[in-house]
Amino acid sequence: MVDRIKFLLDERDIPTTWYNLAADLPPLHPPLNPDTGRPVTRDEMARTMPEPLIDQELSTEREWEIPEPVRQIYAQWRPSPLFRARRLEAELDTPARIYYKYEGVAPTGSHKPNTAVAQVFYNKQAGKRGLVTETGAGQWGSALAQSAAMFGLSAKVYMVKVSFTQKPYRRSLMEAFGAVCVPSPSTETAAGRAVLAVDPDCPGSLGIATSEALEAAGADDSLGYVLGSASNHVLAHQTVIGQEAIRQFDLAGDYPDIVVGCAGGGSNLAGLSFPFLGAQLHGGERVRVIAAEPAACPTLTRGTIAYDYADSAGLTPLFRMHTLGHGFVPPTVHAGGLRAHGMGQLVSRAVEEGLMEARAVTQRRCFDAAVRFARAEGILPAPESSHAIRVAIDEALRCKAEGRPQTILFGLSGHGHFDLTAYERFFAGELDDMELDEETVIAARSSIPEQVWELAGAAR
Amino acid sequence: MVDRIKFLLDERDIPTTWYNLAADLPPLHPPLNPDTGRPVTRDEMARTMPEPLIDQELSTEREWEIPEPVRQIYAQWRPSPLFRARRLEAELDTPARIYYKYEGVAPTGSHKPNTAVAQVFYNKQAGKRGLVTETGAGQWGSALAQSAAMFGLSAKVYMVKVSFTQKPYRRSLMEAFGAVCVPSPSTETAAGRAVLAVDPDCPGSLGIATSEALEAAGADDSLGYVLGSASNHVLAHQTVIGQEAIRQFDLAGDYPDIVVGCAGGGSNLAGLSFPFLGAQLHGGERVRVIAAEPAACPTLTRGTIAYDYADSAGLTPLFRMHTLGHGFVPPTVHAGGLRAHGMGQLVSRAVEEGLMEARAVTQRRCFDAAVRFARAEGILPAPESSHAIRVAIDEALRCKAEGRPQTILFGLSGHGHFDLTAYERFFAGELDDMELDEETVIAARSSIPEQVWELAGAAR
Repeated sequence: MVDRIKFLLDERDIPTTWYNLAADLPPLHPPLNPDTGRPVTRDEMARTMPEPLIDQELSTEREWEIPEPVRQIYAQWRPSPLFRARRLEAELDTPARIYYKYEGVAPTGSHKPNTAVAQVFYNKQAGKRGLVTETGAGQWGSALAQSAAMFGLSAKVYMVKVSFTQKPYRRSLMEAFGAVCVPSPSTETAAGRAVLAVDPDCPGSLGIATSEALEAAGADDSLGYVLGSASNHVLAHQTVIGQEAIRQFDLAGDYPDIVVGCAGGGSNLAGLSFPFLGAQLHGGERVRVIAAEPAACPTLTRGTIAYDYADSAGLTPLFRMHTLGHGFVPPTVHAGGLRAHGMGQLVSRAVEEGLMEARAVTQRRCFDAAVRFARAEGILPAPESSHAIRVAIDEALRCKAEGRPQTILFGLSGHGHFDLTAYERFFAGELDDMELDEETVIAARSSIPEQVWELAGAAR
Repeated sequence: MVDRIKFLLDERDIPTTWYNLAADLPPLHPPLNPDTGRPVTRDEMARTMPEPLIDQELSTEREWEIPEPVRQIYAQWRPSPLFRARRLEAELDTPARIYYKYEGVAPTGSHKPNTAVAQVFYNKQAGKRGLVTETGAGQWGSALAQSAAMFGLSAKVYMVKVSFTQKPYRRSLMEAFGAVCVPSPSTETAAGRAVLAVDPDCPGSLGIATSEALEAAGADDSLGYVLGSASNHVLAHQTVIGQEAIRQFDLAGDYPDIVVGCAGGGSNLAGLSFPFLGAQLHGGERVRVIAAEPAACPTLTRGTIAYDYADSAGLTPLFRMHTLGHGFVPPTVHAGGLRAHGMGQLVSRAVEEGLMEARAVTQRRCFDAAVRFARAEGILPAPESSHAIRVAIDEALRCKAEGRPQTILFGLSGHGHFDLTAYERFFAGELDDMELDEETVIAARSSIPEQVWELAGAAR
């Protein structure tokens, strides 16, 4: 084969450690207890997390060993392939070399199992018999359902009711793996009942589903609560992606000038880019990292850096991060996995430190890019991933205009098999771009807690 | 990693030739022109096939070189992984070693692209600008749509109307790749209009869709007709599966005693098993090959060997094969890809020669096996593939009862991402087994053409 398009590693090449960018950044601002205004304690964290995950969440160690049972399950689909997009390059007639790291080979079709397996493992080790979580579009929920099945634990997933209804196949996938999927708000929890008492037809939100999951896990010591993005430990679990990519670039005899990932809570972007940043911070080549986010939910490009809640109901600690305001309800773009008002604090900090830049892209240009990619490369992308594809194509076209043969890597975080109604609507011309006007952004910001604006004042 | 579960090959290890079992069997009985009762001529075949595919269809050469552009596109997902099902083995507590070759890694999620790429390549080389085909459940149609997009050819797919309505996501997938998907019967062809004139609400059938596709391709010299199973060349294109598996067993230091594949038209089963049979016929180890077919459409186990049409409308030549009768309409089990009244003639012949055995399995036991497999191994299988899983589990349990540590290989021909309504119905207890009573089988046989019963008399 003259022109190689795929760079594989053996299962023995699965990374043996997760990389923690916190080791290479100035100290993070600690999460705060909103009642006391003081840093959250280990005891408070222990209400929802087993000890090893608390250790990881607070860690400034550079590497954490991946337990062997986790690597054994990773081997089901890892190392994931790195592709050279030769047909896309030819179609764009660009001198750029375009590569993508494809996480859709995971059994539930996205990068989410990388952390689901780890969190389930530590919870099982801590003696939990089951797990509770929330999910929006369902990528996280189905990953958790699969991992729980493989470790023999039960799983309950509170799924935002509008998605529960609109994406029945994601729900069916969770049920096939033996999970119980509950439309949220539900009558199972006080939080759900309180919402339903006010609005029996409430379509739900990720914030409400989070409240329900936290309440359900808190009410039963045998259950653990797990989550799909944003937290430090979740971001680190995803770094197997970028670590593999670095080794695969060795095989390709190349190295990226630009690394692009889509960003919602930040775990996919972090997983791909942090190992490259880590290499750079230790004397390696400089890479330009671009976070691609939806113009309908432009957390990094139009948010404020402040302490805010991670959920919309205000039940979590306060995290210092880019936020649009926890009261902000993003428009219902089809990249449901990117509709997060706040960003994982490690990604936020990397942007603050100038290690990453961010770019907001509109929905229709993303679907345009997705279809162009699919017809050239044969893989139908998830709407979330299409944001990275859009930016990668834009950069490749810039390379063409400038006559610069740069190397571009983007993360193809998942396939679009469960998102075909979105494609149907795109082809039918029914999608809007849903860019935010300035008034909306300013109004959303008012939900950031006042007292915390004072605490975090210096950051504004 | 102590216990390896995945055996990978490099893209440079993609087979360079397809294997043709016809070289190692007694001569096949020639397909007949039903009007003349005489063997179909090359000129007649040339109405729908380019020369290289006619050569392959008639070939008794053992190996055909795979064109480099085809291998280049194969590299997008090939070599596919061979897995050792260690968690399933543990759950069954069997001394058997169970392996599966997973074709769901292909971009459209099944083995179908292995032949789609090849057929599109030869048609493009012959100067065709577009392709026409029929599809039932849509696995073949979406594979063809993807391959056509990658070669820059148009694609039109006549999709059985009931599936067009029931499986909108398969249709959307084809459209995302740029194909035109037409519900059949349509008003676009005389064949479709004739059906609609009699029954405006006709839900369609694969036979009708085949008639429409053949008519549409025949009416325009710039269009080629392609098909997804049964033909000799289609079966041979799939042999990349088994050739890879043989090399992967080398890596595993093992070799199968038993090879199981699900069988509709036979291409998936042939692709996995023919290379093992070829090795056996040339002095290699003997393997027991088991064709797993639905009890609702038991072509090999309850059909007759006779000359019959490949479609239900009687437009094709007559092929000598196992058939239930071309007038037989199989019950609507959820393994839509296995609802074929006739078997590819090479598979039929292999069964006749005692190289393969066949086993019919009922729908609910297959879904039981699929769910058990999914929860152990993390991959949700296509309903078609679940037939192979059922037989593999039954064999593993036999090994347990007998205390025999045999090695079992089965083909996991695709994932079930587009089949989740079937799983929903299974969990809801809404599925029937739809086994055929003897009267139905006898009645179906009456559609086998009388004059041909005479021609093929010796085979009865």
